[in-house]
Amino acid sequence: MLDDLKKSVYEANLELVEKGLVIYTWGNASGICRERGLVVIKPSGVDYSELTPHLLSVVDMDGNIVEGDLKPSSDTHTHLQIYKAFPEVGGIVHTHSRWATIFAQAGLAIPALGTTHADYFYGEIPCTRKMFPEEINGEYEKETGKVIVETFKNKNPMEVPGVIVNEHGPFSWGKNPQEAVYHAVVMEEVAMMAFNTIALKQFINAQVSNYEVTAFAQSIGYFMSSDLLNKHFFRKHGKNSYYGQSK
Amino acid sequence: MLDDLKKSVYEANLELVEKGLVIYTWGNASGICRERGLVVIKPSGVDYSELTPHLLSVVDMDGNIVEGDLKPSSDTHTHLQIYKAFPEVGGIVHTHSRWATIFAQAGLAIPALGTTHADYFYGEIPCTRKMFPEEINGEYEKETGKVIVETFKNKNPMEVPGVIVNEHGPFSWGKNPQEAVYHAVVMEEVAMMAFNTIALKQFINAQVSNYEVTAFAQSIGYFMSSDLLNKHFFRKHGKNSYYGQSK
Amino acid sequence: MLDDLKKSVYEANLELVEKGLVIYTWGNASGICRERGLVVIKPSGVDYSELTPHLLSVVDMDGNIVEGDLKPSSDTHTHLQIYKAFPEVGGIVHTHSRWATIFAQAGLAIPALGTTHADYFYGEIPCTRKMFPEEINGEYEKETGKVIVETFKNKNPMEVPGVIVNEHGPFSWGKNPQEAVYHAVVMEEVAMMAFNTIALKQFINAQVSNYEVTAFAQSIGYFMSSDLLNKHFFRKHGKNSYYGQSK
Amino acid sequence: MLDDLKKSVYEANLELVEKGLVIYTWGNASGICRERGLVVIKPSGVDYSELTPHLLSVVDMDGNIVEGDLKPSSDTHTHLQIYKAFPEVGGIVHTHSRWATIFAQAGLAIPALGTTHADYFYGEIPCTRKMFPEEINGEYEKETGKVIVETFKNKNPMEVPGVIVNEHGPFSWGKNPQEAVYHAVVMEEVAMMAFNTIALKQFINAQVSNYEVTAFAQSIGYFMSSDLLNKHFFRKHGKNSYYGQSK
Repeated sequence: MLDDLKKSVYEANLELVEKGLVIYTWGNASGICRERGLVVIKPSGVDYSELTPHLLSVVDMDGNIVEGDLKPSSDTHTHLQIYKAFPEVGGIVHTHSRWATIFAQAGLAIPALGTTHADYFYGEIPCTRKMFPEEINGEYEKETGKVIVETFKNKNPMEVPGVIVNEHGPFSWGKNPQEAVYHAVVMEEVAMMAFNTIALKQFINAQVSNYEVTAFAQSIGYFMSSDLLNKHFFRKHGKNSYYGQSK
Repeated sequence: MLDDLKKSVYEANLELVEKGLVIYTWGNASGICRERGLVVIKPSGVDYSELTPHLLSVVDMDGNIVEGDLKPSSDTHTHLQIYKAFPEVGGIVHTHSRWATIFAQAGLAIPALGTTHADYFYGEIPCTRKMFPEEINGEYEKETGKVIVETFKNKNPMEVPGVIVNEHGPFSWGKNPQEAVYHAVVMEEVAMMAFNTIALKQFINAQVSNYEVTAFAQSIGYFMSSDLLNKHFFRKHGKNSYYGQSK
Repeated sequence: MLDDLKKSVYEANLELVEKGLVIYTWGNASGICRERGLVVIKPSGVDYSELTPHLLSVVDMDGNIVEGDLKPSSDTHTHLQIYKAFPEVGGIVHTHSRWATIFAQAGLAIPALGTTHADYFYGEIPCTRKMFPEEINGEYEKETGKVIVETFKNKNPMEVPGVIVNEHGPFSWGKNPQEAVYHAVVMEEVAMMAFNTIALKQFINAQVSNYEVTAFAQSIGYFMSSDLLNKHFFRKHGKNSYYGQSK
Repeated sequence: MLDDLKKSVYEANLELVEKGLVIYTWGNASGICRERGLVVIKPSGVDYSELTPHLLSVVDMDGNIVEGDLKPSSDTHTHLQIYKAFPEVGGIVHTHSRWATIFAQAGLAIPALGTTHADYFYGEIPCTRKMFPEEINGEYEKETGKVIVETFKNKNPMEVPGVIVNEHGPFSWGKNPQEAVYHAVVMEEVAMMAFNTIALKQFINAQVSNYEVTAFAQSIGYFMSSDLLNKHFFRKHGKNSYYGQSK
């Protein structure tokens, strides 16, 4: 059963490799059938080159295995918490992609610094708070999902379709598994560029202050203009969007 | 009609992918037929792998669609402003290539720091001023073109065939679409090297000042010598150039 | 003899090239047959493209050539010291992979900054002390092995399966040659991410202190939480591990 | 004539592309026939994909074209100065490879920071002084060669087979064109690692000093130990070398 979803989840997993977001068995993609309350997810520790649609695990919303001979991803309960809290999400991706993971290791959100970011994420991609010892030593993966949900208390997860998990790495999502992969690729791209934008501003500030031109330093703002952020996000999203072909 | 120009624009668009300057549907290349006042440009939101010469959009100088069933690139009006203001330009390219976009996000020009830069750009590649809210919320793409043109008030666009749009990304141009792509590749290359040159100078300065050898720091200038800039640019360009084979 | 081990060591050597860890003749992988006390290792200065299983060198635990017409790797005695001191090690890899070598050149351990690291290395990947002139000018490669062993005086080499040799580069190991390669790949990955995490924290601190928000700087810890480190390491390792498929 | 040398120079030029050191028509490789006093070099502005051995230019030691219908590389007179001053050099390579060019743009030598460097370069790879206006505006390419030679007044060019030309890029050489390419690849590799080693030391110093642990900062030396430098260089070079197979 769920053959179409399995195909979609299978392809999403392979695309993680093709896009250079994962190596070895790292990372995982899943998709949900909302009608049946079932999630299809990569089995744990299986190499992408050996994956087939029929090796994928099917679990219910409590994580019970419904189909598949293999154990589902050890991150399954994180995915389930996200699906439960964000009803519009149809697919989720987790990777240890380099630049997003660097933000995770630094415990920092990815700030919105340009239109590439604004085209897909309506504001900064937040970083979760550090988890408490009792969360880490309790139902760790479930608690990871809960801290992600907590981070979106005042955010729309469909406008900011991704998160940095503190000291861990990125999760992203979308209407379906393919869109979740797309957002994972974009998150990695904007993470790389945000990192280096921050670096460049710091280098210039440091050099300029050597010559005591502090006015120059002050002229460099930290976040992008909110007008431009709005413009770029909404020319691609929402009822007045005009990017791409009419459906 | 315009079959040769369509072929040229088509190939320029594909080359953006091959050179690693764009992913997904990002970026666009266009070309102009000056005699007819028509511009051929990538349609909006179409994947490069699905592009054919006949899917390209043809628009007049006001942006009206003359040929093609698809909507032209959402950046079309930016291209049109550039074509109108710079009569020698025959092709334009826009990407979100990483290093040039990092300069855009930092709101900084790419300084001329070496002969690789001087071989193609006669001085810094300027960064546009930030746009005003009324520009962003008005005819945004047209205003983007106008702010580019404003930036070249005192510059020759054929000697500096590219620009950094603040908080956005690079545009480049040339006598034809192929040269516009070439300049986009070079801009990305010199952006990467300028970034890291600035970084290296900062690292060395910071380390040296720890040891109070400020004379060392002062010995490191910020811009390349104007003689060398002139030499390299003009050995490739203009009537006394001597690089390459005689035509 | 040792045909299976030779095949394994041969494949491990080729994988170093495929994974981008070595160029030209740099680096080497070896494997040990504990029963016979024999080590199979790459011959010195042979290009990977010309390597065959039968060109591999077989040496005894004193480095005497037992089989093979070529001289074994000049690093053979370093491998032998590691095999002698760490009885569970079945394979060893040495490379000059870029990011791990950068830590070596800076004389720094790779700190444990995130779960990617914790999944494979139980704490920082240590950096050896600088070698003394008499060690460098004596039996250099053997002394290199001894300083590695010295560095693990209070560490379990199977929990931290790699080391940074000061001013030189990384060595890694595992139960067999394949696992040693795997750890070399992970070490390179976590070195790249640790480097940039340290950089990002420094950039942010420097920018923040410009605006005198020192509270922000203080909120950024330097090492990851020990709870999370424990959690990630032990969900993959040891008797209560639950990542991957049941054996 | 010179068919073997042409084949060697041709292959060296193509290898520059394969190794990722050049794009478009950038860079050039040459080789010399000492007996006849003739140099074979890439023609100027020809794309590598269109190059054939018979398109290569042959010039005498004054730069007069002896064979070939195309103009030789605009850098020919730089090559000639190097061949004249360094009688053991058999091949020369010039590129704008990224990391070496970054050092050029910063006007800095590549310091010897680890064994990867010491395996091929006996000490820092020097950076030429800035050229004077009269040199730049005179016989520029010849003067470039002369300033390279000046830089090696007290150095053995066969022990340090490469140089950074200030604000320009790297030149490397060797016994033949293939070795010159090899040294160009190694120079790029050690430039990348030296850059990031300097960065890492700076990041750590900056962070540590925030916490006032200056002892830590002092423990990080700047140049590698001279014993180790000697050891690595001479285990590969000279009469007591023991790396590689016996000849």
